[in-house]
Amino acid sequence: MMMGDRDDAAAKANILVEALPYILEFRGKVVVVKYGGAAMTDPKLADSFAEDVVLMRSVGMQPVVVHGGGPQITELMRRLGKEPEFIDGLRVTDAETVDIARMALVGKVNREIVASINRHGPVAVGLSGEDAGLLTVRQRDPRLGFVGDVERVDASVLERILREDLIPVVATVGADESGQAYNVNADTVAGAIAAALAAEKLVYLTDVEGIYEDFDDKGTLLSQVDAARLEAMVDSGSMSEGMIPKVRSSIDAVRAGVARAHILDGQIPHVLLLEFFTREGIGTMVVP
Amino acid sequence: MMMGDRDDAAAKANILVEALPYILEFRGKVVVVKYGGAAMTDPKLADSFAEDVVLMRSVGMQPVVVHGGGPQITELMRRLGKEPEFIDGLRVTDAETVDIARMALVGKVNREIVASINRHGPVAVGLSGEDAGLLTVRQRDPRLGFVGDVERVDASVLERILREDLIPVVATVGADESGQAYNVNADTVAGAIAAALAAEKLVYLTDVEGIYEDFDDKGTLLSQVDAARLEAMVDSGSMSEGMIPKVRSSIDAVRAGVARAHILDGQIPHVLLLEFFTREGIGTMVVP
Amino acid sequence: MMMGDRDDAAAKANILVEALPYILEFRGKVVVVKYGGAAMTDPKLADSFAEDVVLMRSVGMQPVVVHGGGPQITELMRRLGKEPEFIDGLRVTDAETVDIARMALVGKVNREIVASINRHGPVAVGLSGEDAGLLTVRQRDPRLGFVGDVERVDASVLERILREDLIPVVATVGADESGQAYNVNADTVAGAIAAALAAEKLVYLTDVEGIYEDFDDKGTLLSQVDAARLEAMVDSGSMSEGMIPKVRSSIDAVRAGVARAHILDGQIPHVLLLEFFTREGIGTMVVP
Amino acid sequence: MMMGDRDDAAAKANILVEALPYILEFRGKVVVVKYGGAAMTDPKLADSFAEDVVLMRSVGMQPVVVHGGGPQITELMRRLGKEPEFIDGLRVTDAETVDIARMALVGKVNREIVASINRHGPVAVGLSGEDAGLLTVRQRDPRLGFVGDVERVDASVLERILREDLIPVVATVGADESGQAYNVNADTVAGAIAAALAAEKLVYLTDVEGIYEDFDDKGTLLSQVDAARLEAMVDSGSMSEGMIPKVRSSIDAVRAGVARAHILDGQIPHVLLLEFFTREGIGTMVVP
Amino acid sequence: MMMGDRDDAAAKANILVEALPYILEFRGKVVVVKYGGAAMTDPKLADSFAEDVVLMRSVGMQPVVVHGGGPQITELMRRLGKEPEFIDGLRVTDAETVDIARMALVGKVNREIVASINRHGPVAVGLSGEDAGLLTVRQRDPRLGFVGDVERVDASVLERILREDLIPVVATVGADESGQAYNVNADTVAGAIAAALAAEKLVYLTDVEGIYEDFDDKGTLLSQVDAARLEAMVDSGSMSEGMIPKVRSSIDAVRAGVARAHILDGQIPHVLLLEFFTREGIGTMVVP
Amino acid sequence: MMMGDRDDAAAKANILVEALPYILEFRGKVVVVKYGGAAMTDPKLADSFAEDVVLMRSVGMQPVVVHGGGPQITELMRRLGKEPEFIDGLRVTDAETVDIARMALVGKVNREIVASINRHGPVAVGLSGEDAGLLTVRQRDPRLGFVGDVERVDASVLERILREDLIPVVATVGADESGQAYNVNADTVAGAIAAALAAEKLVYLTDVEGIYEDFDDKGTLLSQVDAARLEAMVDSGSMSEGMIPKVRSSIDAVRAGVARAHILDGQIPHVLLLEFFTREGIGTMVVP
Repeated sequence: MMMGDRDDAAAKANILVEALPYILEFRGKVVVVKYGGAAMTDPKLADSFAEDVVLMRSVGMQPVVVHGGGPQITELMRRLGKEPEFIDGLRVTDAETVDIARMALVGKVNREIVASINRHGPVAVGLSGEDAGLLTVRQRDPRLGFVGDVERVDASVLERILREDLIPVVATVGADESGQAYNVNADTVAGAIAAALAAEKLVYLTDVEGIYEDFDDKGTLLSQVDAARLEAMVDSGSMSEGMIPKVRSSIDAVRAGVARAHILDGQIPHVLLLEFFTREGIGTMVVP
Repeated sequence: MMMGDRDDAAAKANILVEALPYILEFRGKVVVVKYGGAAMTDPKLADSFAEDVVLMRSVGMQPVVVHGGGPQITELMRRLGKEPEFIDGLRVTDAETVDIARMALVGKVNREIVASINRHGPVAVGLSGEDAGLLTVRQRDPRLGFVGDVERVDASVLERILREDLIPVVATVGADESGQAYNVNADTVAGAIAAALAAEKLVYLTDVEGIYEDFDDKGTLLSQVDAARLEAMVDSGSMSEGMIPKVRSSIDAVRAGVARAHILDGQIPHVLLLEFFTREGIGTMVVP
Repeated sequence: MMMGDRDDAAAKANILVEALPYILEFRGKVVVVKYGGAAMTDPKLADSFAEDVVLMRSVGMQPVVVHGGGPQITELMRRLGKEPEFIDGLRVTDAETVDIARMALVGKVNREIVASINRHGPVAVGLSGEDAGLLTVRQRDPRLGFVGDVERVDASVLERILREDLIPVVATVGADESGQAYNVNADTVAGAIAAALAAEKLVYLTDVEGIYEDFDDKGTLLSQVDAARLEAMVDSGSMSEGMIPKVRSSIDAVRAGVARAHILDGQIPHVLLLEFFTREGIGTMVVP
Repeated sequence: MMMGDRDDAAAKANILVEALPYILEFRGKVVVVKYGGAAMTDPKLADSFAEDVVLMRSVGMQPVVVHGGGPQITELMRRLGKEPEFIDGLRVTDAETVDIARMALVGKVNREIVASINRHGPVAVGLSGEDAGLLTVRQRDPRLGFVGDVERVDASVLERILREDLIPVVATVGADESGQAYNVNADTVAGAIAAALAAEKLVYLTDVEGIYEDFDDKGTLLSQVDAARLEAMVDSGSMSEGMIPKVRSSIDAVRAGVARAHILDGQIPHVLLLEFFTREGIGTMVVP
Repeated sequence: MMMGDRDDAAAKANILVEALPYILEFRGKVVVVKYGGAAMTDPKLADSFAEDVVLMRSVGMQPVVVHGGGPQITELMRRLGKEPEFIDGLRVTDAETVDIARMALVGKVNREIVASINRHGPVAVGLSGEDAGLLTVRQRDPRLGFVGDVERVDASVLERILREDLIPVVATVGADESGQAYNVNADTVAGAIAAALAAEKLVYLTDVEGIYEDFDDKGTLLSQVDAARLEAMVDSGSMSEGMIPKVRSSIDAVRAGVARAHILDGQIPHVLLLEFFTREGIGTMVVP
Repeated sequence: MMMGDRDDAAAKANILVEALPYILEFRGKVVVVKYGGAAMTDPKLADSFAEDVVLMRSVGMQPVVVHGGGPQITELMRRLGKEPEFIDGLRVTDAETVDIARMALVGKVNREIVASINRHGPVAVGLSGEDAGLLTVRQRDPRLGFVGDVERVDASVLERILREDLIPVVATVGADESGQAYNVNADTVAGAIAAALAAEKLVYLTDVEGIYEDFDDKGTLLSQVDAARLEAMVDSGSMSEGMIPKVRSSIDAVRAGVARAHILDGQIPHVLLLEFFTREGIGTMVVP
């Protein structure tokens, strides 16, 4: 072993000494990851994400992937000659649209995530909120049609799939009591599932570094923030529109028993491994 | 209790005395049902089918539902402005087509079957052959594009889901070693899955009564036939085109250890219950 | 399948659709059946009873059969040259009589029931209250000799036998603390055992349709009655002598946690199957 | 502690040091005891026997008691005015006689043994060969009527009862395929049950010391003998009539896998404890 | 069997009838034995002790042996040229002394006890209080150096070893939070371990008969005494110096949930068997 | 996250991606480490070794530590005024010497290793080959006295301790059939234990880089070598004296079923982690 090798070895050893205790700490723990943004659209990042969840599971963690797919719904609607319409940023979803949404989410986006993970090991199983009563929803607003709010999560199907050492990948379509399908906000579903599973962590992969104290000053990234302060920030209006559902769901989740919620930058390759197995915090951690 | 009641009671009692031993016999047994035809398109029959599989499971059987959806693929292709093309009756499937097929099968047909079953109890979980390495396929013919033949079935994901008392509903999309999706014939997949699970029974729901000795004479329905004779009938050409994949898969399945294969008329309401829990045979039973 | 067959099939299917949910509901539930009357003495009814309990067990229920045998005791006494004597309808039971009673109940009646059940499957095991401390009794009245009242039921031997998937058939002989044998009323024992096992149901097979509101008017059969009203009826004296121990035991049992007690007409073949697996009520159901 | 106490203590200690290893050796082992003779008729010996089997079970052994009761059958027949008749020493058993035998064996002798054991702990359960298909027999000789030879032993009911830490006490009534009851020789049944259970030991309690080399010379007691030599002795006619079924069954049992058979003198109080837990052999031990 | 044999047999039978119920009573129970005195130094007594603990384990008890070894420490110190020094009867223990103590206790005394037990069966495993965090101690007095008082017992390593059917033999060396070794009083450790294991019994093997009411009158041996009275006796000063730690630890142990503590004369061969498996009490029993 | 942070993060991520699959691969696998040389005598290396074995166990591996302690024996002998004597490099071991060896190995070296590991988590348990029959030895040569060769390894005590998630630390003292203690070569014991446990790996921590093709040329380090070639090298005499027992034991171990043996340089901090969890080989790996 050369001198340079020795330095290299010492560096590696230090990282391992740092990582191994986390592996023990997180064994058997459920981590719900809301997947989206560049981490989902950039093929290299998507592959690094897939590798991460397979590695997490291989050391005994229980990852659950939750995803939406607004752009893909819009694209399929357009291909089918239907122009999307929005009210207050929410898609007006008639019967034909929910059918299209389901095809896009369950039949395309979910399939691609499952396939991507399974290239690293045959462990991913695609699910939608309609499977085995996972997500029961109610209509949010008659003007929006089949846009649902989460009414009840029956996480038993997830628990059973996790018990079998598989990785559930959940497309956020839900059903009301009569079995009618609805489109549901994926950020909210991720939080509700994390709460229902009493997850150790809820992670949002986004395209920003985390939450800034001052939205306009990138130097004010918050590495840790508690639910009360976060709520005050949302109320004061100092939060971007797209961040709000993630932040509200994080607040709800940590209040409902999830130990930690994280807003991470999905543009960092292997950000999940770095967050879970190294000492330094990445992005913003929300605590109760 | 009136006299008429007494007769009625005696009739009921006889049916129960007849049915109960079958319940004992089939407890814990796996039954793979290839679902299709009128039983899938007629809403009332679809509902009676959904009720049957939930009841079968409630008395301890382990039903697995397998389905395709050629007409639905064709319909979505046309809506997207793409005209289906066939060679020897098989759909030419380019990259765009397999994407559409997946949306139709996984994102629409599978969803509707799952929703229909879950209206009778939250027990159905949708799967495709891509989940957890269920179906590995290879290309059949370069001219057909992404049309796959079953190369390997890894039924462990089904066994795990059955162990959790859920009903898997399998859309017949498979993947090759590289993770590329393929469309696969559902009749063949049903047989291969039955063999991989060492199922007690493989059932094809069709729109005919069963297999006729003489295809043109409805009076020649075969109630039982062995694999050798059936093979001779296929070879002699006395079999309708659509029946051949079912018959070939039945022959393969019983030779691979499945105890019985059945060709049943899905137009009879509750035909599954009648076949499993009453003495008289319905349709055609294939034995090794 | 002929037209008539189709109607027949539909009827069968309906009965199955009706029966299967009950099978799920009653799986693993304990049902204590007090066996007696014509159902015990008529060979055809005895055989239909035996078939019923074996079928109940085969679908996962846990039947327990309890029986007495007054006429058989009387007959054996007379063959041995001893004339039965009664005080207030209760047999005076000296040491010789209890020995004879035991031979008649355990050595004859119990054996015949066990043999009858075992002809449908080798699952019945005869027991008396003396086995493994099942029934501890105390003397009712010195004038009656060895006639016992139930003091304590130790149902653990029954639980152990049920756990082994066997059907216990209990002859109602008990023992006092010193091991001395006593004759005990079988109706009372059935109720006490049902309570000790926290049975789902307690069933009395009798030679009448059930309980009549007005004992003299067969049109006043009560299909359901609660414990309080039944108690009032007993107190008012509007109840036949032979029905009173059954009714009192039913009241005690439902008050002690048994969900339902039933007074059924054992002259209806397969009355147990009809009661358990069809929608219409038969006889009288006693609720708390 | 006085000097005399010390000697006494040393003696006690030696016996314990001797006994404890046997307890380890026999834990979990099945021992079939054919009970009869003075040990059954003398009340003090009967009580010491009952105590022994309860103590054996308390240290983890699994005793099974098998008994007949010829004298008791004869007595009940006479009380019922029926004179016993014998051909070659075997009782002619018509339908009425087998009914009487069953009442005597199951309804009287078995009950008394069960009661006697249960006075030391509520652990005995009475069984007959008819219970749960334990003994299937065939007719020995039409002239003898319902006298059966053992055709098949289904020991699963015994295994289940032993698994529940209970002591089965078996009356030797069997049934043929049609469910007809037969009287069977208890010595033979004991051997057949020991073989079916792959028992560690088969023990016959008799009224003699054991087997003598020379039947007329009490000084020739054999402490150990192998099956071949014993067979030669039987063939040479140098064996008392009553001993022959015991000896033949011992030979068959050790050849069928039972480790040891013992012919013991049931007139010695606690002879079972002495045989199992002390070093010196008692009576005659038969080895393969 | 001769007449004399019969008497002998009866005597043996009586001892067995007496012993067997204790075996049932103590199965699975933990017994902590503080080993020392003549029972440890006299080779014959040491062998009888080793045989006893192996026999106790063979009948399902869970013995734990605890020992010190003052004389052996002193001897090794002297061989290494170091003169022991005492303050108030406690050894002054500098860094070198604790090293020597550990070699004497763990490397010599413990090894000899383990070897002695293992000659009767390979079941003993030597431990010290440093293993797996068993004994955490704090310094008693700076003048004494590394003499520790028990601060915390983590008995899980003992429970795990007992679960594996092994006999732990504990040398009473402990460690403080920093891992520094200390010498600890063995009598006290035995009591603390008995309390931590919720032992059934705590036994001190000593060189006296037990506790005397009047220390000077050997006729006043107390066969049973409760904790309050014992405490009064200690407080009144009527107790030998060497007995006090045993007595204090007995009082603490029975108050902490140990059912019984015993002061026994280790000079009686097999005193443990006599105490556990015979009716008469030996030595002094301390009750709560 | 700064630019430099990003590079650092990428480096960390790569090491984690590299390490995690090994964690999965080695979970539940037994690794026997022969501990010695500088890694044992240098306090910093000893601490890094202790941390490594605790981390290995924390991610599910099952480390077993084996050690000797020649220098420590020599030192204690000298302190006790006894001059060591050697024949062919082996210590002449009379009765007093084996006693001293045991005190040094079990009472001192073993204690220090256990204490060192337990500072990172209370999981180490000290053992010697005398515990629970672990090492049975026979005398090598009468001239050497109590120097033993391994005759039989009974690894069940190690398996039981591993099953309890503890780390056994084994001092290489063994016993012959009579219980007499012997000193045994630690390199040989490590190999024999690895074989008996069917270990995944056997690791020797030494003070050299590994095995050199040419002993005098440090540039000829062999990174991998098979048993046959290694045997040839030993036979040809091109191996240092101290390496021979390690090499012979490695050859025996891989031939007896151990997957890999490793000769590693214990002077590299965390060499175990580097070997197990990074891609590059360190030292010399011996394959079958």
